[in-house]
Amino acid sequence: MKAEILATGDEIRTGALVDSNSAHIADHLIQSGLVVTRHHTVGDDLDELVAIMTEISGRADMAVVTGGLGPTQDDLTAVAAARAAGCDLYENALALETVERFFRERGRPMSPSNRKQALLPQGATVLDNPVGTAAGFELKIGKCRFFFVPGVPYEMKRMLAEQVLPRIAASLGADRRYSQVQTLSTFGLPESAVGELVSGLPDAFPMIKVGLRAKFPEIQVRLYCDSQDAEEGRKHLAAAADWVVEKVGAPVFSTRDQSMAEAVSELLAQQKVTLSVAESCTGGLICNWLTNVAGASDYFLMGAVTYANSAKIKLLGVRPETLARVGAVDEATAREMAEGVRRAAGADFGLSTTGIAGPSGGSAEKPVGTVCIGLATADRTIARRYTFNFGRRLMNKRIFATAGLNLLRRGLRHDPAL
Amino acid sequence: MKAEILATGDEIRTGALVDSNSAHIADHLIQSGLVVTRHHTVGDDLDELVAIMTEISGRADMAVVTGGLGPTQDDLTAVAAARAAGCDLYENALALETVERFFRERGRPMSPSNRKQALLPQGATVLDNPVGTAAGFELKIGKCRFFFVPGVPYEMKRMLAEQVLPRIAASLGADRRYSQVQTLSTFGLPESAVGELVSGLPDAFPMIKVGLRAKFPEIQVRLYCDSQDAEEGRKHLAAAADWVVEKVGAPVFSTRDQSMAEAVSELLAQQKVTLSVAESCTGGLICNWLTNVAGASDYFLMGAVTYANSAKIKLLGVRPETLARVGAVDEATAREMAEGVRRAAGADFGLSTTGIAGPSGGSAEKPVGTVCIGLATADRTIARRYTFNFGRRLMNKRIFATAGLNLLRRGLRHDPAL
Repeated sequence: MKAEILATGDEIRTGALVDSNSAHIADHLIQSGLVVTRHHTVGDDLDELVAIMTEISGRADMAVVTGGLGPTQDDLTAVAAARAAGCDLYENALALETVERFFRERGRPMSPSNRKQALLPQGATVLDNPVGTAAGFELKIGKCRFFFVPGVPYEMKRMLAEQVLPRIAASLGADRRYSQVQTLSTFGLPESAVGELVSGLPDAFPMIKVGLRAKFPEIQVRLYCDSQDAEEGRKHLAAAADWVVEKVGAPVFSTRDQSMAEAVSELLAQQKVTLSVAESCTGGLICNWLTNVAGASDYFLMGAVTYANSAKIKLLGVRPETLARVGAVDEATAREMAEGVRRAAGADFGLSTTGIAGPSGGSAEKPVGTVCIGLATADRTIARRYTFNFGRRLMNKRIFATAGLNLLRRGLRHDPAL
Repeated sequence: MKAEILATGDEIRTGALVDSNSAHIADHLIQSGLVVTRHHTVGDDLDELVAIMTEISGRADMAVVTGGLGPTQDDLTAVAAARAAGCDLYENALALETVERFFRERGRPMSPSNRKQALLPQGATVLDNPVGTAAGFELKIGKCRFFFVPGVPYEMKRMLAEQVLPRIAASLGADRRYSQVQTLSTFGLPESAVGELVSGLPDAFPMIKVGLRAKFPEIQVRLYCDSQDAEEGRKHLAAAADWVVEKVGAPVFSTRDQSMAEAVSELLAQQKVTLSVAESCTGGLICNWLTNVAGASDYFLMGAVTYANSAKIKLLGVRPETLARVGAVDEATAREMAEGVRRAAGADFGLSTTGIAGPSGGSAEKPVGTVCIGLATADRTIARRYTFNFGRRLMNKRIFATAGLNLLRRGLRHDPAL
């Protein structure tokens, strides 16, 4: 069954807003067993809306449309859908209840313009919106089932999951196929090397399709399984994931689409150990990533962003002689920073970064892209130097921070190669 | 003149990747005076590509297509364009030179598959790619001028600016209109209040269209001017921007689409003063934002991410009695943190945040969303408490960090209301 996705609204059409809804919807429709062939965007223009809905209805079996369900003059989706389907609008009691409930629950007065949100095409089925004023609706236009949901991402996501996907699953019935995806995340190998390592997968697992995806600075291995039995599909995926982990080895840091910070945080929490971090070139990015994970206060004690040498000396106890002898960017400095921040916080692990993110500050010996990472525990301190050449400051910060967390991950997993 | 945008590739079609290219292209085409009517996405499927290019050629005067110019079997854009235009492919010497130059400059061998990237439709004009292997090209299909560029964002952006937009401007000639945009960024007022303050703008400046855009946690005022004379348009915009600054006042933190961190960094650099930051609930986000700005080491001395109370005491000299008396989230604690981090670094300004980002940790007296911000200088220390109710952890971190930087900005500007 073919599906298309339509995002509406002048903010998206004009580029004032990036449309992230369509990617989310595509991913979930495909996992429901539909073939997504096209996405479109049009603005708040009645003729364009009617035209594109009519075109989609001639090509696709299902369609999801976002946006244009609000109370303003610009919100034209229901009018356009009625016109494309050749029917009239009427005030739907259930849709009116959705709007009224929203205001009642918040103790706010409902403005007359919100009443417009209850006007739906004849023959439409209401899709409940538990978190906003705009009810969605389902409507057949030509041979195609259209699902209309709001453009606000969290309203859309909730309604897609609770209203749209179950209806699609029910209508597929015995034809339902389960397209499942599992994402393994790797760091430290180029895309070509990962591709080489997993090149035998199609032979070993004929049921599985494999794709690589660069999500800087990670390389993800995406495993796809299309099957009529969801449980069987999951088993195939799990076996293939195990195979990938064995082939690729230590560079795999998650088999569940976690970020590096999430994977490391999980290890810290499981092992009930604590961490403190000293950042120079990464400028707080590691701390920020770690504290994006709820519950970070259980294991994350403290971070020090020691940009200036004086801060490295004063806060971390880095020796002025070391800085004078080898400079700020060196394994010896990274080692003293890691030890110093571990000691200052009384943490089990101390992690440090010092490097040159650019655009200036590089030299022939230490070009932009050079980073030294230190990791200190009660027993030992190690340091590593890497040189990355992605040029841009923000990319360098990202790859430096990921490399730092990866060294910590290897330490937490007692990687014998460390 | 009508323009459409086509993003190609299975990664975008399947939702593995969010397409941010189309928004960037739409914004720039509109500023060049084109009317962007539709965006589309299709996968790496020859029939779909040919079909949609043919459809676009029947509707639009211009089109920009991203993706599918690489060396692999999946890269079908040139083949599809040739088929839609009804012409053959041939090896273009200039496109071949683009590929060869890329490998030559990097001292890497060129693989035979890259030679495929020089195969272009007959009648195509090469668009030089100074930063990648894939040359772009321009081709007329039906009545529509198509511009084909790579999907890699930084290659696309560079080629759009250097190759595509100048060609569009040249072809518009005397019909060329200049659609210019100026973005003013505000923080601290709800969208409705900003809307109220600028509601008189259309009367005062009939040449200017105004739009509000919520870019959490900022509210942007976007001024649009469409004119035949670029210089005249700029003058109108500048006058309208001055008017907005006068009406909205202190909440305007940039008239040039800067981030809050960029605006603050500019003030720090101009005033040649230094800063140190103590972050609790924002967990390194302020430091990370500040160090995303190149040159941060000139004014940013140090940051301390003091999640644990022990770190607040040890690193910042917060008094245990204060913590025992009022807790970690309080103006008094924020004040001592700001003073402590200022003193530790010997900086001109000390900034601190302490609050509850959630999801847990809230109480009736201090709900999730509460933040206290401290700002210390040699002369005085101030602290403010705010309660935001956006619920989610990452949103809270963003608004806390922005509120912190905003207090610093007001301090740097000697805001008499502080």
